[in-house]
Amino acid sequence: MKFIHVRKVFLIPNLIAPDTKESVLPSDINKVLNQISYFFAEDVRTARRFLSDVKVEKRIEELKFLKTDKDTSREEIKSYFKEIPSEEPVGIISEAGCPCIADPGNLVVEYAHQMEWDIVPLVGPSSILLALIGSGLNGQSFVFHGYLPIEKDPKAKMIKSMEKDSLSKQQTQIFMETPYRNDRLLEEIVLLCNPETKLTIASNLTANDQFIRTKKVREWKNNLPELHKKPTIFLIQG
Amino acid sequence: MKFIHVRKVFLIPNLIAPDTKESVLPSDINKVLNQISYFFAEDVRTARRFLSDVKVEKRIEELKFLKTDKDTSREEIKSYFKEIPSEEPVGIISEAGCPCIADPGNLVVEYAHQMEWDIVPLVGPSSILLALIGSGLNGQSFVFHGYLPIEKDPKAKMIKSMEKDSLSKQQTQIFMETPYRNDRLLEEIVLLCNPETKLTIASNLTANDQFIRTKKVREWKNNLPELHKKPTIFLIQG
Repeated sequence: MKFIHVRKVFLIPNLIAPDTKESVLPSDINKVLNQISYFFAEDVRTARRFLSDVKVEKRIEELKFLKTDKDTSREEIKSYFKEIPSEEPVGIISEAGCPCIADPGNLVVEYAHQMEWDIVPLVGPSSILLALIGSGLNGQSFVFHGYLPIEKDPKAKMIKSMEKDSLSKQQTQIFMETPYRNDRLLEEIVLLCNPETKLTIASNLTANDQFIRTKKVREWKNNLPELHKKPTIFLIQG
Repeated sequence: MKFIHVRKVFLIPNLIAPDTKESVLPSDINKVLNQISYFFAEDVRTARRFLSDVKVEKRIEELKFLKTDKDTSREEIKSYFKEIPSEEPVGIISEAGCPCIADPGNLVVEYAHQMEWDIVPLVGPSSILLALIGSGLNGQSFVFHGYLPIEKDPKAKMIKSMEKDSLSKQQTQIFMETPYRNDRLLEEIVLLCNPETKLTIASNLTANDQFIRTKKVREWKNNLPELHKKPTIFLIQG
C-alpha cells in the first residue's frame, strides 16, 4: 500500500474591524498560525498585514504567499501545490471574516477534498452569522444571497422575490451590497417592501461603532441611517 | 426628554465539543462574561456548567438564570425583564454553538430590538458555518433548512427539491437531522440524489475526531461513514 501523506489545510478567518483580535479570534490561534509557512490569500498585502498584526513567530519574509482570487483556475491551484512539500500544512487566509464565504478560496478546499487531506476550519468572525444572530429573526431557516443584481429592475425583482419567500417559507433572507451603494439599496428596500416587513441593518460589525437594529419597514421609512461605505448586512423577514 | 437606559444584550456562544475553549472562543470572552449576572438559557444546568468551565469570576450561585426554551412566550420574556435592574447587562447562552441559530433565544433578541437596547453578538463556533467553509462548496449563495421532515415521503420530497434548487440556483443546501437518525438520512440521500451531486458530511466539528469530507454521491455510495449519534451537518450541491 502506498503511503499517502495527509496534509492539513487550515481555513483562517481574518479580522472584520481593526484591532479586534482579542474579541474575535480564539486564544490559541497563534499556536496554529505558527505551524504554517504557506498561505493562500486573495491579496498578499492584506495577508501579510494580518499575520504581522496577530504577531506570528516566523518572520513574515520567510513565509510564502500564493495569490488566489476569483480568477484563479483549478489548474493554477494544482500547480501551486506541486511547489509545496507534501508534509507542509497550508493556510487559506480570508480578506475579511471567514474564508470561502462571499470570498474566494473554496477551490483550494475543493482540491483538498479531492486529495483527501484534512480540512480544519478555524472559528472567527463572520458578519453574515453575527448579523443573523443579532437580528432576532428566524435562525431555524435562512438563506444568504450574496450581492444583489446591480441593475435597477432585476434588483427590484429580487427584493420582491426575497420578501415573498421570507413570508411563504418563514425563511430569513440575508444579502449585501457594495458599501458605497448601501444607501441607494436601503431606499429601494423601504420603497418596495411591505410596511410590516421586518428589516435588519447590521453595520460595522465587531467594531466599536457597530450597529444592529431590526425594525419594521414603516418604522425605518422616515429614519434611515447613513450607511455610505460602511460594510453592511441586510436581512428581511415578512 | 425621558432618559432611556440602553441595556446591553450579549449573545454568548457555547462550546460544541468539550474542552475546546481555547480553540473556539475569543481570548477576551471572560472580560465580557464577568460583567454579567443575568443569563437567559435553554437549559440552566448546561449554562451553569459552561460558565464554570470557562472560569468566570463571580460565584455561580450568585448568578441568575432565566429559562427560555421553544415554549417560552413573548409575555414571559417581558416579565423576566421586569425583574432585572435596568442598568444590568444580560447574556443569552446557547446550548451549543451560537445562540439564535437552530436554537431558541431569538425572542429575547426580538424584545431587545423593540426596547432599542444594544445587541452584541459574540464570536464563537457555529457548526453550520464551519461545515460550509470546510465543504469547498459555493459560499456565495447558500440556504440553511434546519431539520428535515421526519416522515419518509415529505423528507424524500425535500431532499429532491433541495437537490433541484442547488442546481438551478447554484446554491449550497445545508441541513441537519437528529443525531440518532443520521445513518438513515445518509442512506436516503445517496439513494435519492444524482450520482454526480456533491455531498458534504461534517461531523463532530471542533472535536479531536472532527470529520469533514466532500465527495460525489456515487463515491460515498459504497463507503458510508458511521454517523450514529454524532452531531452532523449535511450539505449538497448539484
